[in-house]
Amino acid sequence: MSELDPLLFGEIDPPQRLLMGPGPINAHPRVLRAMSADLLGQFDPEMTGFMNQVMALYRPVFGTENKWTMLVDGTARSAIEASLVSLVTPGDTVLVVNFGRFGLLLIEILQRIGAKIETVEAPWGETVPMEAIAEALARTGAKVVATVHGDTSTTMAQPLEGLGELCRAAGAYSYVDATATIGGMEIAADRWGVDVVTGGLQKCLGGPSGSAPITISDRAAELIFSRRHVEKGIVRDDIADGQGPRIGSNYFDLAMIMDYWSEKRLNHHTEATSMLYAARECARVALGEGLQTRFTRHAEAGRAMTAGLRAMGLTVFGADATRMTNVTGVYIPDGVDGEAVRTAMRTQFEIEIGTAFGPLAGRIWRLGAMGYNAQKHKVLITLGALEVCLRMQGFALPLGEAVPAAMQAWDAA
Amino acid sequence: MSELDPLLFGEIDPPQRLLMGPGPINAHPRVLRAMSADLLGQFDPEMTGFMNQVMALYRPVFGTENKWTMLVDGTARSAIEASLVSLVTPGDTVLVVNFGRFGLLLIEILQRIGAKIETVEAPWGETVPMEAIAEALARTGAKVVATVHGDTSTTMAQPLEGLGELCRAAGAYSYVDATATIGGMEIAADRWGVDVVTGGLQKCLGGPSGSAPITISDRAAELIFSRRHVEKGIVRDDIADGQGPRIGSNYFDLAMIMDYWSEKRLNHHTEATSMLYAARECARVALGEGLQTRFTRHAEAGRAMTAGLRAMGLTVFGADATRMTNVTGVYIPDGVDGEAVRTAMRTQFEIEIGTAFGPLAGRIWRLGAMGYNAQKHKVLITLGALEVCLRMQGFALPLGEAVPAAMQAWDAA
Repeated sequence: MSELDPLLFGEIDPPQRLLMGPGPINAHPRVLRAMSADLLGQFDPEMTGFMNQVMALYRPVFGTENKWTMLVDGTARSAIEASLVSLVTPGDTVLVVNFGRFGLLLIEILQRIGAKIETVEAPWGETVPMEAIAEALARTGAKVVATVHGDTSTTMAQPLEGLGELCRAAGAYSYVDATATIGGMEIAADRWGVDVVTGGLQKCLGGPSGSAPITISDRAAELIFSRRHVEKGIVRDDIADGQGPRIGSNYFDLAMIMDYWSEKRLNHHTEATSMLYAARECARVALGEGLQTRFTRHAEAGRAMTAGLRAMGLTVFGADATRMTNVTGVYIPDGVDGEAVRTAMRTQFEIEIGTAFGPLAGRIWRLGAMGYNAQKHKVLITLGALEVCLRMQGFALPLGEAVPAAMQAWDAA
Repeated sequence: MSELDPLLFGEIDPPQRLLMGPGPINAHPRVLRAMSADLLGQFDPEMTGFMNQVMALYRPVFGTENKWTMLVDGTARSAIEASLVSLVTPGDTVLVVNFGRFGLLLIEILQRIGAKIETVEAPWGETVPMEAIAEALARTGAKVVATVHGDTSTTMAQPLEGLGELCRAAGAYSYVDATATIGGMEIAADRWGVDVVTGGLQKCLGGPSGSAPITISDRAAELIFSRRHVEKGIVRDDIADGQGPRIGSNYFDLAMIMDYWSEKRLNHHTEATSMLYAARECARVALGEGLQTRFTRHAEAGRAMTAGLRAMGLTVFGADATRMTNVTGVYIPDGVDGEAVRTAMRTQFEIEIGTAFGPLAGRIWRLGAMGYNAQKHKVLITLGALEVCLRMQGFALPLGEAVPAAMQAWDAA
């Protein structure tokens, strides 16, 4: 079937590539090293101690006091589905605030759950005004409002101040996918008043994909526990099933996952220990730096990237006011082969920049400066390399302007 | 909410514990080191090259030539659910061959999918005769037959020779959960003729939980692709939707996952790169040792463990003929506090042995010798420690018999 002889494959030895796209990005070396610690049994006191530490570490990262703050064992997308399948019962009305590819993903997941889906939308490159969300919520009477914080497909960050209050006043639950912003822009689950927020490690938290932090408000936990159904093989006298409809997935059943992370220690999946070590170290790095310092660093990087691109004569995509700080879209100039530039960046400079999806495919590149890569020298090196690659494609640009402009913008308070 | 101050948590530093339970077990050091390699973009040629290598590496591990041999990004349980939700449409009749806790898990997952479930069962400690499966299949006309290879809850390994032929003759698809045996006992997907087999890293493959190998026959792939539905945000002209009912989960949609692992490289989740490195190294270690050598080593370890336990005067659980080679159940003697022994093993010797579930809870311990821990010295050390801990509990046993008996059994061909 394959002409590859597996016995000839050598040790893992990836090229040393600088990942300046929309994620994944290079992991922080401390995170990579943490994963080489040996494993523990899943109910060892030391292991459950590490689980409790992870819960404590991610509360400030999410900006919350929520007890239920933990990990889902899968990529960022796994926590999105776990949230939606645990909150939403087939036939429930869900309002999706949609302004990009990841809003479309929420719709897609909800269709499979069997939700009745209503949407309030913005064109790619814009976000949805809170008044429009309020109107749509009043119109639809949705039980759940689901949205994305930063949608890397459009580089836009949806303003979320007031969303929770709005939803609670209407008796609705709220869900936010913060995969692309967590650790890089402020996540304020409690101040926003939202019920469930999920993230991923592979963007601003500077870790590998494969573990997804989640936080759940008490009122959402109550809803989810009302749907609790413990597997027959592990039924226990101290854990009662709820009266609500069973959650449509076993792996994504947040009630069982919460029981696993609680003092009940209900057996569910076998925790992905190395990824838990990684998630723990991501948060330690972030809190050790200081969250505010970290957000400022991402803002500096985004400002520098934007200034550098503009100094090259390029046009940045989307509204300045609502742009994510950690990823910048830029139009591919007329006459330039976007994929040839990306290939030259990779083969000549070992730098990855991102392509785009859907209506933006072939029209913009996306340049990220996230987590461990939101550093001045990495932004400058990327801009310098891009200038060379654009020239190689025959694009006329003001030489030597981008890097100094970026340096100046980085330092501008 | 928590009295833990996250800023006080130190570097990850788990105790050096010997994990001789039913899994997870200590990972092979080469696997732990592989995870510290830096990340790559998910469509980098080097990354997709590593994905292709993983496909090639897992074909021999599964005993198959199946093109569709890859990873699901989650724990072993995630691949079970991905298989069932992708094969089974709500209302389909599924026959579960159930002989333990993980058979009950299959039923649980299928209930949530909305399948019509039929079962053919064996008491815990036995397996199901192939004739009984044949009768049940004829009686129920099931579309899918689902079973477990090795069920660690009972330490039994279900014989699977002939299962595929039986199912294909009846027009049924077959699914096997081989989490607990892959890499330790022979998996012969092609010879068994079964359609979908899944595994995990954290048992006989000597890796961490969090990535789940899967192999899919062409005929099962055809069924799954007939249910293909590409997300709206990433629709492409070269990938047509199928006519069948959409798969009930986005994350577990094997059609999209196959399109991601194929030359189509459809964007789905962001591959869990570090876990892929781990999975790759697990298979390299296994194939480098030689699968047959590895199976023999597990058999030696199981034989030695069993002989040692019996030499201590203990009674081994379940039928010898169908016992898994890599985990051994043993009755907790009358008058002995099973949990006190486990605690003494952990606190005095830093060795973990397993407790049990359901009808066997409090009745047996489960001692594993899997993957990197299926080594003579680890079996001997465990038996020696158990002897001391049993004496501490006042259990009268023939002193100094267990370890020599195990040594002798290891070497007996």
